[in-house]
This record gives sequence, structure tokens and C-alpha cells, in this order.
Amino acid sequence: MKKLTAVSLATVLTASPALADEGMWTFDAFPAARMKAAYGWAPDKAWLDRAQAAAVRLTGGCSASFVSGEGLILTNHHCIAQCAQDLSSKDTDYLANGFVAADRARELKCPGQQAEVVTAITDVTPRVMKAIGTLTGEALTKARDAAIATIEAEACTDKETTRCQVVTLYGGGEYKLYRYRKYSDVRLVWAPEFAAAFFGGDPDNFNFPRYALDASFLRAYENGKPAATPQHLTWNPRAPIEGEATFVVGNPGRTQRLLTQDQLAFQRQFTLPLMTTLLSEMRGRLIAASEQSPDRRREAADTLFGIENSYKVYWGQARALDDAGFAGKLKANEADLKAKAGKRLGDPWGDIARATDAYRDIALDHFFLEQRAGMFSTLYGYARTIVRAAAEREKPNAERLPGYTDSALPLLGKQLTDATPTYPWLEETALSFWLSKTREYLGADSPQVKALLGRDSPEQLADRLVTGTKLADPAARKALFDGGMAAVRASKDPLIQFVLRNDPAARALRTAYAQKVDAPVTAAQAKLARARFAAYGAGNYPDATFTLRISYGKVDGWMERGAKVPYRTTLAGLYERATGQEPFVLAKGYAAAKARLDMATTFDFVTTNDIIGGNSGSPVIAKDGSVIGAAFDGNIHSLGGNFGYDPVLNRTVVVSTQAVQQALEKVYPAPALVRELAAR
Amino acid sequence: MKKLTAVSLATVLTASPALADEGMWTFDAFPAARMKAAYGWAPDKAWLDRAQAAAVRLTGGCSASFVSGEGLILTNHHCIAQCAQDLSSKDTDYLANGFVAADRARELKCPGQQAEVVTAITDVTPRVMKAIGTLTGEALTKARDAAIATIEAEACTDKETTRCQVVTLYGGGEYKLYRYRKYSDVRLVWAPEFAAAFFGGDPDNFNFPRYALDASFLRAYENGKPAATPQHLTWNPRAPIEGEATFVVGNPGRTQRLLTQDQLAFQRQFTLPLMTTLLSEMRGRLIAASEQSPDRRREAADTLFGIENSYKVYWGQARALDDAGFAGKLKANEADLKAKAGKRLGDPWGDIARATDAYRDIALDHFFLEQRAGMFSTLYGYARTIVRAAAEREKPNAERLPGYTDSALPLLGKQLTDATPTYPWLEETALSFWLSKTREYLGADSPQVKALLGRDSPEQLADRLVTGTKLADPAARKALFDGGMAAVRASKDPLIQFVLRNDPAARALRTAYAQKVDAPVTAAQAKLARARFAAYGAGNYPDATFTLRISYGKVDGWMERGAKVPYRTTLAGLYERATGQEPFVLAKGYAAAKARLDMATTFDFVTTNDIIGGNSGSPVIAKDGSVIGAAFDGNIHSLGGNFGYDPVLNRTVVVSTQAVQQALEKVYPAPALVRELAAR
Repeated sequence: MKKLTAVSLATVLTASPALADEGMWTFDAFPAARMKAAYGWAPDKAWLDRAQAAAVRLTGGCSASFVSGEGLILTNHHCIAQCAQDLSSKDTDYLANGFVAADRARELKCPGQQAEVVTAITDVTPRVMKAIGTLTGEALTKARDAAIATIEAEACTDKETTRCQVVTLYGGGEYKLYRYRKYSDVRLVWAPEFAAAFFGGDPDNFNFPRYALDASFLRAYENGKPAATPQHLTWNPRAPIEGEATFVVGNPGRTQRLLTQDQLAFQRQFTLPLMTTLLSEMRGRLIAASEQSPDRRREAADTLFGIENSYKVYWGQARALDDAGFAGKLKANEADLKAKAGKRLGDPWGDIARATDAYRDIALDHFFLEQRAGMFSTLYGYARTIVRAAAEREKPNAERLPGYTDSALPLLGKQLTDATPTYPWLEETALSFWLSKTREYLGADSPQVKALLGRDSPEQLADRLVTGTKLADPAARKALFDGGMAAVRASKDPLIQFVLRNDPAARALRTAYAQKVDAPVTAAQAKLARARFAAYGAGNYPDATFTLRISYGKVDGWMERGAKVPYRTTLAGLYERATGQEPFVLAKGYAAAKARLDMATTFDFVTTNDIIGGNSGSPVIAKDGSVIGAAFDGNIHSLGGNFGYDPVLNRTVVVSTQAVQQALEKVYPAPALVRELAAR
Repeated sequence: MKKLTAVSLATVLTASPALADEGMWTFDAFPAARMKAAYGWAPDKAWLDRAQAAAVRLTGGCSASFVSGEGLILTNHHCIAQCAQDLSSKDTDYLANGFVAADRARELKCPGQQAEVVTAITDVTPRVMKAIGTLTGEALTKARDAAIATIEAEACTDKETTRCQVVTLYGGGEYKLYRYRKYSDVRLVWAPEFAAAFFGGDPDNFNFPRYALDASFLRAYENGKPAATPQHLTWNPRAPIEGEATFVVGNPGRTQRLLTQDQLAFQRQFTLPLMTTLLSEMRGRLIAASEQSPDRRREAADTLFGIENSYKVYWGQARALDDAGFAGKLKANEADLKAKAGKRLGDPWGDIARATDAYRDIALDHFFLEQRAGMFSTLYGYARTIVRAAAEREKPNAERLPGYTDSALPLLGKQLTDATPTYPWLEETALSFWLSKTREYLGADSPQVKALLGRDSPEQLADRLVTGTKLADPAARKALFDGGMAAVRASKDPLIQFVLRNDPAARALRTAYAQKVDAPVTAAQAKLARARFAAYGAGNYPDATFTLRISYGKVDGWMERGAKVPYRTTLAGLYERATGQEPFVLAKGYAAAKARLDMATTFDFVTTNDIIGGNSGSPVIAKDGSVIGAAFDGNIHSLGGNFGYDPVLNRTVVVSTQAVQQALEKVYPAPALVRELAAR
């Protein structure tokens, strides 16, 4: 699944300048000439503007698109899974059973969800660079962050309907201001059964052939009414044609294609093994806990799916870096750039190597106590947000931590105070896991560990904090968020006090990171960006930043161990693959509707588009601007895509509009939606 | 814990010829001149013979020693933990509460346990080499295995009291016949509480300072009476002296110090990440399952401790290989040997590289379906042993798979038919874990996965097999083992039939491995062994093979981040470290006895001896031949010891005889044992 949490055991990689269908291009730098050379055609500005205006970012970590004039949004089922679970209870399990709103009045608001559409992109590089000047260390990161906070605050004065974000591209080589129209009332309209959406489950995830109806519809509202969205994509429920050009427009979350060899080694030696082992153990804990009761199974489901997906992503990234061919190509790319750059820029690679070495000294502390503090605990996340927001809001906007500036607070407040269920057992499991792993990796004698635990065991402390906290109640969260530092200090909430007590140590690690790592790396990456532009010019695109990008490619299978993997699957294959056992159980809807369905319907298909986690839900657009699918995954070879694109093997996996149309008509009938989608 | 499952984030490594205190030496090649040069003294043959005669191998994966003339054996508590658990029930939890036999009649037989003492070592290299000749591929491995089976059968005609084992040293450079006196009736005599033995639990495991009373006593019996063991070590309950020479005599299980760079890369890219992630998930499953009830907690305890220990070992191995200094030294060692070897031997490194590459093609299948088939399931292990033993026993001895030859069958039969409890829920957890991971890594479309699962889910199949099998009953296992292939074929046991049906595919992978990997690697390693002897002569020792070795060193702390870690801990520290919460709960015995105990008693200490997993329970012997401790662990830097010894940082962790004596006198009183140990 290509939700944000990001990742090919590939054998061939493009050279450093983008080749073939590589690239997650910004809309202000689409390589039209290059595409035209390869495809004989490329979209013009009007085509691109239309696609941009219809492209939706979902703040939960997904992409989407408007597909009607009345705010109807196409995305993946796995992008609404959290919403479906939040809206479910013992008696109404929308995640398992699906959801079809009988009419618009019964469309259900998704807690914490916001839809955003880019309305303008402005280059603010000179202003940020000027603020940075020749500063170094923490002064550099503070000046940068202050400039960004100020630019954002100035650009978005209407906080009700707009959001402004300065995006750091090329790791600090460019800064662009993205202005968004935002919709903070987003409702669930239609979702298939989980068994249909995620048929094949974890074993099939990141694999193809595939038979997943990973599609869903949301609707953007404003002032309690469906939003007017005239710039929508045209719904085109036809089968894809092998070889036809396709565009994926969405928000790839994060790639690391511009990392130096030293940074890659750090990933391979620190981040990837640590993440895979932590995710594996938590996965095991949740699987065993889920077996205790159907309630626990339901309550843990979305967290577990997220963990299993992330695990595969990190596992695939590690295997890609272990692949001699893949790694060798990355090494050669760096050598090429180094040779072209010469000595004019100093030694940015050496600067990054030194910063990475410095990071090693604090990496475990920084990871457990700051970067991933609380890990899978929602309540801990609330507590930290409340404590930090209170402290930061006492400072002038330009001096706050990123994430707590005026431009960030509206969404932060919404996500903090929207009502979503938490499950005490799951919170205790998550919190005791984080505490026990922190003790395991930092050691029982670490002063920070002693400060966290005192004489408690991780289990005992987690139990006390979760039992005692009131933060599961949105009203309690709101009161603390609104009450600021005075309310936080006066609070008797044990989780708030726990975070408050331990925050200075976490902040010290944040400062050490800014000083020793972020600042020198930002300065060095700005130099590397200049070197890349000088060497490769327009054949160059920034790493993914969960902002709007466009990728071009075509409908195409690939060769796997000497055999061609066909570009699509058909409905017939779903029935053949179903075993009756999870995760290969045929969804009830498909079992019941079988006789009425055309078995030749294209179900899922693959394209050469270059995507990554965060692209989930992205519209797959044909040459004529119509939408023919929603990207929801990559094949196994796409996992190395975090570090480099392999045109031979890397494929995007798409659920076809033909399959969705069939489901809307005959499986999970929604005649009103069918009519709305057909309206031109 | 240094039980067999075997691993230092080290910065300095010895060069290829052993230096400083490096080396796990065979008794027939003790480097007396080298030790004398360093210590001014070295043991003579009489000293070595005496130590050899008192050294015990425990077939559960541990080491030990005779410490009285009546068969009394000193080992670690964690080496008897499985036995204590097997003998426990809801009402009598010997693992948690400890065990003191009121008299000899109440010493309790440990299921599956056998004690073995080396009585002779004979070089059979010429005979095995002659059998191999110039053969290659599977013919090589078959000829080698046939020669070994024949030598073993000829050498041990008395199967009641002797066991013969041909040990492959230097990966095929030498073959030695080890003849053992065996004791197949081994009883539990004394064990402290678990909270005392494993104080600090997983967080403190592989760490120091340490406060673990990881000691226990067993007794070897013959003909129902305590065995006469006149060649025992003298019990010496004194504190160690900083700087004094120490010897560790025991059975290090496995090291990989002679691996080539390509083999190391394979470890780093395949084995280590796979093992850490699998162990992590299973760990999580067992932790969560243990929280369901005290029974489950008790039943899963030993499996969980084993998993947590192995996880740390593999994790530490990976970190060592990721350490640039450590890895660089290993690389330099290989370059040095290559330069010294020249071209006379052909290209054994290249041969191994090609074999390793060939292994990659079958590695996942081989791992999941043959090497680790069934993983943590005891019942699956029984079924596979029964099925294979039945098939193999129909063949002449020399044609059987290793492990099923006449010399191996007595212990195999004992371990198969001794009564030990199994827990259905734990077996189902283990079996479904293996099946689901096999599907995850080989893919749902793998023909082998389809053959294993059919249309079942892993959980459903595991449930059916565990519920239906009778193999938890030792009588059922014995009937099938004794009944041979006819009984196996006629059996309606679903687990037997499951293994029988899938065994041809597993054997095919075994054959492919023999052909593509084992044969070329064996031939190449024999060449590398010759190159090493030519280059380094006697400054050379074979990788560990779970056979008797001796290591010399001294009592010494080490420098950690600029500060000296003292060489010992005292009892006072135990009380300071106890928090009242697991795993830092003060054992009841120590809480009750506090006023009567001398707080200055040496509890645990560290030495520079070079050990590895399998050495657990090894006597730590002073210059005068008396025993002053039992090795039970290494510090965190010892984990890289699998690949190389770091004299600066690698330390062995020992429980002192002074602490054990104190416990025997005042904490878990055993006056008869105190008298027996004092007898000279």
C-alpha cells in the first residue's frame, strides 16, 4: 500500500539525470520536451493546470482527486480505513462491512481528515537563502525556520479556507511556497468491504497479479454543503489499453534518491534494521493480542495494517541497498556527480559524512526519546502535542518549532480535538512497547531511561499513565490545548505531567540534532543541488516531499524470471484465487453478485509511473485528461524506488475505474453515485 | 546468555594469526609457548588432561564440569531452565521458585539431557580426505558423510556408555574423531530462584555490571547411582583476583571467524536481517500471549528467553559487521592471507563466492522449508525426526543423512522419547508463525507454499495439525520411532502425514544445497585451511564446533567511553539495583537472607577469555586447577566475537564460586552439597 510511510530489489537503475519514465516532477517543471521525445506527445499548460486543480491531498497521508462538480473525491480504500474504523463500533463495523451512504445526509464526517488543493506555487528560495546567509549550526536552522514561518504567515491570512506551506526541495537547494485551498470537512461516501478492498492481505501487498478493489469515495464539504469543484477530472470507467500513456498526479511522501553514500550507509546500518525489528515485534504483539477477541482484532486492525505495510517497505529498502547491482549504480551516480562538480563547491560529501558520523553518537537517544517518542501510542502523541504547543505558542511565530507555527496550528488543532476512539489496551500495549524498547536499546543504566521509568517497569508505568489520563476525551484535549501553558502546568493528568517532565531532555536531543546534523546537512545539500543543476540541468527533480507531483509513464507489465507478467488482471482471477480463508476470503458482495458480473472486467493493472508512499489514491489519468484508475500500490521491485527508479522492473499498481464502476453498479450499489460520476 | 545459539561492536581486532588472549584452542594444540610468553606460565599436559577429564558437555547446548567425585556437575541456571520447566506444573514451579533436592533420592531426572566427557581425540583427516579424493558436488558430500558415519560406527561399539563424533574443523581442513564417555541419566540437584539467576533479565543480558546467580548443579548417574567421577575439579569458593590468569574449558558452539568476505556479506544481507526480524515478531507474539494468563507466561518462558537471547546475538553480529573498523579489519585479514597464499591453491575465495551466489537462488526456500522448517514447534520437530529416521534407517549406515547414522541414533532416540511437556497453544502459535512467514517470504504463489497450505490458512492448518496429532505423547513417538517406515506410512497422525507429504520437496532443497553450496565450499575451505597453516602455523585455531576447547585469559575490566568498568560486582550492588519490578525484582531468598549475608561477596566478574554461545556453564579455572566460577555470558562487545575477537573490549561474564557458596550456605541452603563440594 502506498500510503505515506514510504519504498525494489532492482537490477537496473537510471543514471543520475532522470531517464525513461523516472521522475516525480513538480508542476512548475514538467519535462515536456523529454516526454515528447519518448511518447510523441506531452501535456500542455492547460492540461497540467486542470490536473493540478483536481488533485487532492488528504492530510492522513494520501492522495486523491475530485471526480464530480460536487466535491466527490476518489481515493483508495486503505486511505479511508482509519476513518471507517473511527466511525465503527461493535455493532456497525464499516471497515469490515463497507459503507454506502443512502443519501448525502448520511455521508459521515471523517475525524481529523482534511482535503487540500494546490492553488499557487511561488519560489521563495532567495528569501530563505538570504535569511540563512553564512550562518551555521543551530543559528542556521533557526534562521531558516523563522523565515519559513514568516513567509507562511504572511501568505495565508484567511485561515478558514487556505493553508500555506513552504516546501524544502533538494534537501535545502530550493524553497517553494505552496498555497492550498483546504476543506476541513471531509465525509465518507462509499467504501467496499475490507475483504474486497484488501483481498490477498499482507501476503499480496506489494505484489502483482492482484485483485484488490482498493477504492473509496469521500466528499468535501464547505459550510455544511458539498463543495463546488468544477475543475474535476472526468470519470472514465473503461479498461486501460496496454501501452497507452498514463499520468499519476499525487503527493509522493518521501524518497531518498539524493542521499550520499554515507547517508545510505547510515540508513542501511541504523534506520532500516532498527525499524524492521521494532515493527516486527510490535506486529507480533498485535497479532497475538488480536487473537484474544473479535473486539481487539477490530480495534488493532488499522494499526496492524500500517505496521505490516511499513515493515515491508523498510524490508524492501534494505534488500535494495543490499543488492550489489542497485547499490553499485547509486555509487556510480555519486562518483559521476563528484567528477562533474570538481572542487568548486568545497566538499559537501565530506561535510555530510562528518554530520552523519556525529549523528551516530546521538542517534539511538534521538530516535527513542525525540523522533519516535511514544511510537504507536495515540494518547502519548496527544500529550506531546499539547505540551509542546503550549510552550511554543508563548513564543513569537518566527521562533517556534516547525509544526507549531501559526500556519500549522489550525490543522494541528483539528487533528488534536476531533473525536476519534482510542482503546486503552492498545494504548497500554503501545506505550509499554516504546518504554521497554527504549530501555532495551539505551540500556537500563541510561540516565534518560531512569528518568522515564523511575522504579517502574514499562508495563506498570504504561498502565498507570493510560489508566489515569483523560486525554481520550476530545473535550479534555481541547481544554488543555486552548488553556495553554497555565492549563498544562496545572493539569493533574499523569500523561501530561510525564511528557512535561521529560520534554527538556527530548528538546535537548532535538537541539543537538539541529546543531550537529540538520544544519551542516542542509548547507551541504544546498551545494549538492547546485552541483546537480549544473551537471544535469532540467533532467533533475527533487526528492518527494508529500507535495504535488506528476509522473508520466505507460500501461505495461514486466519480465519476471524470464516470463512476462501481464499488465492487468480480470475479475475472473478473483474467484480463482479465493480460498475461503483469510486473507483470501471472497467478499460477501462479490460472492452474491457473481452471476451478474462480467468476468472479463479489468480489475487491477500496472503502469511504469514512478510513485512512492503518499501517492496512494492518486488518479491515474489518460492522455485525454480522464481518470482511468486510482494508484494504490507498487510491485515488490518498487520498494527500492525510495533510493532509485528502475524502469525495467518498478511498477505502479492501479485499481481500474472499470472495476470500480462495476462495483458501484452491481456489487455495492450506489446508483446516485453512478449518476453523479456520469454527469459531464 | 552463552547457551548454544551464538556472537561485538568492537573497534580493534587481532590480526589473522591469533594474538593476545584470542583463541578457542583444541586440547591437542594448546599454544603453551604463546601463553608462556604472555603470562610467564602455561599449563602442562597433566594440567590439561585433568581439565579435559573434568569437562562436561551438556547435549542441551551447554558446558559444565564435574566438581565432586560423585558426579556432581556445575553449570549455569539457564542451562537447566528447560529441565526445570519440563519438571514443573501449575503447583510446582521449579523455574520460578528454584529447587533444592532434600536428598539424593529426590534429585530429579532431566528429560532429554545427556552429559558427555571427552576421553580421546584422534586425527582422521587422511581417511576422510582419501574418501573425498577429487570428487565434487553431491558425490563429495556423500563420500565425506559416508566416511564419517563409518569411522564413528567402528570407533564406538559400546553404545551404552560411549559416543563417537567426527568433528569437521576449519570447515573441512581437518577431521578429528572425538570419543566421549556419556551419561544419559542426568538429574537436577540445586537451582536458585529464577529472579536470582536471571536478575536484570533481557535488559541486562550481554551487559555488565551484572548481578546474576546464573549457577546450578546437576548430577550424572549410571545404573541408577551417582557416577564415580574422580577426575573432578576442585571447588574453590574464593573471590577472583584482578589480573590473575583464568582458563575457560568448554564447548563453544559456533564461530564464523574463517568466513570469506563473500560469506560475511551473505550473513549481513540474508541471515542476520532475516533472523532478527523473525525472532522479533515471534518475541512479540509470545510476549502478548504471555500476558493472557500466568500459565501461558510460565509455559512460554523458556522459549521466550531463548528467542530474546538469540535476537540479541544476531543483532549484535549485524552491528559488528556494520562497524567500519571491525569490518575493515576482517577485510584486511583476508587480503593478508590472499597475498601470502598466492596462486598455488587456485582461487578458493572465488569458488566460495560462486557457491554463495548460487545459494542466493535457493536460500529462502532452503531456509523456510528445510533448514528452519517448523521453526519453534517441538511437535513438528518430533514429526520430522520420526519421518526422516524411518526413511534413513532403511539405508546402510554409510548412506544416511548426518544425524541419522548409528552413532547419532541413541541420543536422537532419547531426545525423541523422553517425556517433556508440550503446550498446544504454544505449538499452534509456533506452527502458524512458521507457515505464515513461509508464505510471506516465498509468496502466496510459490508451488511449495501451495503444497504446504492447500486452501487452508496458516492458523487453520496449524490448529488442525496440533489438535489432531498424538505426538505430545512419548509413547506415541516411541511406537512410531520403533515401528519405522511401515508404522509411519500407516499412521493416521495428521502431523506425520503432513511432514511425510512435504518431505520430498525439503529433501530436494537439501540435495541442491549439498550440490551447489556445501560441496564447493567444503573443497574451498580445505584449501583455505592449508593456506592458513602455511601462513600462520600454530597461531591458528579452528572455528568453534560445540566441541571441547580451552581459552586462556585473565580477570580484567575494560574501558567504556573513557571510564574503567570494574572487573567485578559485589552482593551490595544487587540490593541497590533491585527496583521491585520485573526483571529487577529481588528474589525472595535474597530478600529474606539479607541480614545474614556479607555484602562484600564477589557476585559476578569479567575475564578476557575468548568464548561464545555453547560455553555457558564452562568452569572458569585458576592456575592451580581449581574452579572459581562458571562462565554464563559475554559483555555487549563479545557479540562480534562470532566474527573476530577484540582483546580490548570483549569480555566473558562469570558467576563467582564465592557467590554460589554463599547461596548454598545461606540463601538456598544445601548443607549436603556444601560438604560434598568441600571434600578433597
